[in-house]
Amino acid sequence: MNFDQIKTIAFDADDTLWVNETYFRDTEERFASLLERFETKNKIDQELFKKEMQNLPVYGYGIKGFMLSMIELAIELSNGSVSPEVLQEILVMGKEMIAHPVELLPHIKEVLEKLSRRYRLIVLTKGDLLDQERKLEASGLSQYFHHVEVMSDKTPEKYQHLLDHLQIKTSEFLMVGNSLKSDVLPLIEIGAQAIHIPFHTTWAHEEVSKERAEEADFLTLSDAKELLEVLPILS
Amino acid sequence: MNFDQIKTIAFDADDTLWVNETYFRDTEERFASLLERFETKNKIDQELFKKEMQNLPVYGYGIKGFMLSMIELAIELSNGSVSPEVLQEILVMGKEMIAHPVELLPHIKEVLEKLSRRYRLIVLTKGDLLDQERKLEASGLSQYFHHVEVMSDKTPEKYQHLLDHLQIKTSEFLMVGNSLKSDVLPLIEIGAQAIHIPFHTTWAHEEVSKERAEEADFLTLSDAKELLEVLPILS
Repeated sequence: MNFDQIKTIAFDADDTLWVNETYFRDTEERFASLLERFETKNKIDQELFKKEMQNLPVYGYGIKGFMLSMIELAIELSNGSVSPEVLQEILVMGKEMIAHPVELLPHIKEVLEKLSRRYRLIVLTKGDLLDQERKLEASGLSQYFHHVEVMSDKTPEKYQHLLDHLQIKTSEFLMVGNSLKSDVLPLIEIGAQAIHIPFHTTWAHEEVSKERAEEADFLTLSDAKELLEVLPILS
Repeated sequence: MNFDQIKTIAFDADDTLWVNETYFRDTEERFASLLERFETKNKIDQELFKKEMQNLPVYGYGIKGFMLSMIELAIELSNGSVSPEVLQEILVMGKEMIAHPVELLPHIKEVLEKLSRRYRLIVLTKGDLLDQERKLEASGLSQYFHHVEVMSDKTPEKYQHLLDHLQIKTSEFLMVGNSLKSDVLPLIEIGAQAIHIPFHTTWAHEEVSKERAEEADFLTLSDAKELLEVLPILS
């Protein structure tokens, strides 16, 4: 792996720059408790994931779709006997997720500050547009980024289209993110480079088979700070 | 008004390129019927608008936020006695809105085709990212546009930021849209030009006072086809 040619580095946002998946997990726990008189936690978890996958083509990524899926499932799982208080609680939980303060991951600010002296940095994220703009604003990181793109999905085609649009050569492009499926493998596929920095928890939808991951050529780091060791930087 | 300098024309999407507000109105009607045993249609309409305005800073624009506001209001207006069937019906109505086929407004295709020979055309729209991408794809119009930007809000600052980012001079920029508040006045404010093509129905949130509109210098057309008469085009 050689990063000498890299001119633009793109960062994923959720669980790469700041904590995100943790809040979804917490909300899933609370959702399961709210419905515990109807089903086991395990079953509720499974059904919620199924419901989200069913609705993903309709709602896309983000908290609002997650809220709508929880409401739909709560009505179905309870055969319509769920109390209005539970549904209101789901709305409250969702609004709390949206309003949650941004928690930066370790060393992110320092790393971006140093990288921004040599590279053009951009953000490539999925999720709700307003949500992601708000988080970036609240993060205090927006000064480091030349461009922010909220993508409806992270496929090789969408990446290629975006790089063309931003006039970035794939050979000069590096993506950094926590999701093998969204931030790493599609980039390898189009001939760009990628660095994987796993977050401690991964949404099942973002998981890929070990085989798919093993075939690809990319670096894995355990903390953003290590980027400063593997990438050429201005001292 | 002189359009000789214009190089880039941006079109709003909903109710400028295709029908949108009509589906919201239809859904509001159905929503009021679903709740008619609790309140008058008039009261329900008013409360729904209030609820949407309350939730706008949290959810932003688009159908998913509208669905969540309807659910929240249905529970509140009924003091929790709304039936699960009604809530499920709200989810179905929302999904139907999302899946609704795109209906182009009159002459749009022809107008874009002709304008695209001389101008760089872009789309500037609010709403859900996935939704707008999907509609543009389904519309068969994407070939005419160099750039599509889904904006979280259409303020003078956001327009200015975007024009800077796209390296477009305000003096060479014209916006075309149905909303005085979002597509016309903010552009006049930053020194660009705007053409207003009203749609037969306007969301109350997009309405502005007559005075504010009368002070501004812009052209109003009744049909997109008239753009071909007022703008210089290649014959």
